Amino acid sequence: MSGRAIIEAELTWRNGRFVRGEQVIIEDGLITEVGALGLEPTQRLTGQALLPGFISAHSHAFQRALRGRGETFPAGSGSFWSWREAMYALVAQLDSERFYAAVHATFAEMLAAGITSVGEFHYLHHSPAGNDFAFDELVLRAARDAGIRIVLLVTYYKTGGIGQALSEAQQRFATESQETFWRHVDALASKLDSRTQSLGVAAHSIRGVPVDEIPQLYAEARKRGMPFHMHVEEQRREIEESRNAYGETPMQLLLHRMRDFTGFTAVHATHSEPAYLQEFLARGGSVCITPLTEANLGDGIPSIAPLLARPDRLSLGSDSNARISMIEEMRWLEYAQRLRSETRGVYRDEEGRNAPRLIEYATLAGARSLGLDAGRIEPGAVADFVSIDLHARAIAEVSEEQLAEAIVFGAGDDVVHATCVAGEWR
Amino acid sequence: MSGRAIIEAELTWRNGRFVRGEQVIIEDGLITEVGALGLEPTQRLTGQALLPGFISAHSHAFQRALRGRGETFPAGSGSFWSWREAMYALVAQLDSERFYAAVHATFAEMLAAGITSVGEFHYLHHSPAGNDFAFDELVLRAARDAGIRIVLLVTYYKTGGIGQALSEAQQRFATESQETFWRHVDALASKLDSRTQSLGVAAHSIRGVPVDEIPQLYAEARKRGMPFHMHVEEQRREIEESRNAYGETPMQLLLHRMRDFTGFTAVHATHSEPAYLQEFLARGGSVCITPLTEANLGDGIPSIAPLLARPDRLSLGSDSNARISMIEEMRWLEYAQRLRSETRGVYRDEEGRNAPRLIEYATLAGARSLGLDAGRIEPGAVADFVSIDLHARAIAEVSEEQLAEAIVFGAGDDVVHATCVAGEWR
Repeated sequence: MSGRAIIEAELTWRNGRFVRGEQVIIEDGLITEVGALGLEPTQRLTGQALLPGFISAHSHAFQRALRGRGETFPAGSGSFWSWREAMYALVAQLDSERFYAAVHATFAEMLAAGITSVGEFHYLHHSPAGNDFAFDELVLRAARDAGIRIVLLVTYYKTGGIGQALSEAQQRFATESQETFWRHVDALASKLDSRTQSLGVAAHSIRGVPVDEIPQLYAEARKRGMPFHMHVEEQRREIEESRNAYGETPMQLLLHRMRDFTGFTAVHATHSEPAYLQEFLARGGSVCITPLTEANLGDGIPSIAPLLARPDRLSLGSDSNARISMIEEMRWLEYAQRLRSETRGVYRDEEGRNAPRLIEYATLAGARSLGLDAGRIEPGAVADFVSIDLHARAIAEVSEEQLAEAIVFGAGDDVVHATCVAGEWR
Repeated sequence: MSGRAIIEAELTWRNGRFVRGEQVIIEDGLITEVGALGLEPTQRLTGQALLPGFISAHSHAFQRALRGRGETFPAGSGSFWSWREAMYALVAQLDSERFYAAVHATFAEMLAAGITSVGEFHYLHHSPAGNDFAFDELVLRAARDAGIRIVLLVTYYKTGGIGQALSEAQQRFATESQETFWRHVDALASKLDSRTQSLGVAAHSIRGVPVDEIPQLYAEARKRGMPFHMHVEEQRREIEESRNAYGETPMQLLLHRMRDFTGFTAVHATHSEPAYLQEFLARGGSVCITPLTEANLGDGIPSIAPLLARPDRLSLGSDSNARISMIEEMRWLEYAQRLRSETRGVYRDEEGRNAPRLIEYATLAGARSLGLDAGRIEPGAVADFVSIDLHARAIAEVSEEQLAEAIVFGAGDDVVHATCVAGEWR
């Protein structure tokens, strides 16, 4: 939307609280001013509460096409690894048309769930025709068509396991060398819709990338000002394989090879040793947890003590998109820890507030992980919002003091009224 | 609904599978015939799949009024016990009007989430005026007005803790003696809407009922053909207090004092020793797990190995109703175990199917726990259904072979199209 708009919702989320009578001025897709400005709104959101749009900092959009698949276990209990076989079988079925449809459906469902930005950790680069990176542009097109903001985390993927060649099923993920990879990344940069699209880089994992290449990839991403993501220690087997090959865990390897982790998001860190995680955070690193997917895959419940002091460093992701609900992600991030610790209110802020902290993870911390000025309703940030229907059944009788808690712990996505990306409502 | 109806949905859930072309004949609120009967339907549910209505076998409806409350922790992490203080504070605020409104809103929200029967474990008996059991009839009225089937589990509550008098906050739960309790239960029986209302009995817990009274209460309930429920071993402190007072856990106490547990549902059993749980099941007992509430309260993740062989004995409950979603309850019953065991497909049937087993818990096993012929689309059962919108975004592209899995693991309550209780759609 070009031009200027003045939005006034009944309640607006500012600094971790819902407040009344705030007006938000939007110009050219950005927030330029917020406050009780005494202006006549051009958009009055009656019966609605305005939050920053939710941010899924870690997504594999095409995996939504697996929904309902890989959930039957005739040979006894399954695992992450048996799920991966189902995912590879899906990949083999995806031509350009089906891939686009799957990714577009994911982004549309994200918007319906209040997600306005996605960090798309994209490794399924090639069409069945071969080494063409055709699917990278399809992801960008699907995001633009659906209307979601995207940070395309172009993923480097070179090995099928530590020291192993790519398997047949993994050929379509292949990036041959850093040189060709960066040439491709730079070519993609010219194809972005600059209002809503940007690039980042990912190293798939210690399984998918030779460990010595990771510091180079990271340094090159930093040089370009791009966020950097990597799957780290989601599964115990990954850690065992790393110990067997290198004598160290993946997190140890990173800590020994790199000094600074600014802009580096470790996705999962489910089985990371708290001491290493603490060191990683102290050197600037961030973590993305994906509660619904980690539960679906049976990854385990992480030890999050080092994260509690660093609320800006923990983002949330919808990951496999088997189920898309950022409200459920927030709720179960907390609930998994409550179940583990047998206490309540694990992720709480200085005032002991639990829901506002969880909302911070789903908004501001996600933006930080993706290198966006988003996730806050303040001047300078992008005009991305989710509006909540205050008359929705789940929250209709709740007072505004408990509204955030009622949304996070008591509601489904049916409380989402609409979403706005770069000033455009849908 | 009196008279006869013939329902034909696009898909109908029978024996753990969706099948096409089935017709369901309903007469006077009951299913009388099901099959490919070649009749012209009077209700054609195009684009819908028909499931038995979900059953919440354990609910405290009034606690929904706490939604969003008790979720801030200024004094550090909270617990079940600090939550209980918030719940007692709510009780002090509930006059008849507010109580009715809270309970009615719960039942209405349950129906919107596909729940057609509720086992209301009801202990807030008395209005502020005193020992009048006025709220028991209000619960029945709210259920009738909302249109939900109810089994009112009239709850015996005599002590404020083992060997302790009721506290001030607990006075409104009081049942003075078994004699007056049964007189009240029998008086209530005459006030039921027989099409959709029946009675059961609950002993609140080892904290709320002297252990020697439990076998008598159970025997009397059995004599009347009523289901019997009791909170058992939700919190470690309950077990410690029982050990301190009696030298045994609550489950041990029950096993030593009673032979048969037919019709006895132990709610939670979160911290039950597997060996005792196994013995309890072998003697006819059942368990109700309440995943969303147990997570919210930080109860812990139960050891469920003994339950896996007895799918008819595990039901689900919405309990505190802080969030009402039977789909989310099913999903997180499984996911909590996946997180704990780091495997996938924990609750699976003989064919390794996970979602159908979870649906069985949410329907047939719930009916069994409440003494209802419900939870199945077969002749003789009540005509209670939930219809699923096959065009809903979360499941629109899923094939019917994966539909159950997509609903359980991939959907929210927005896939619920309508519910039917005793043949009446709403």
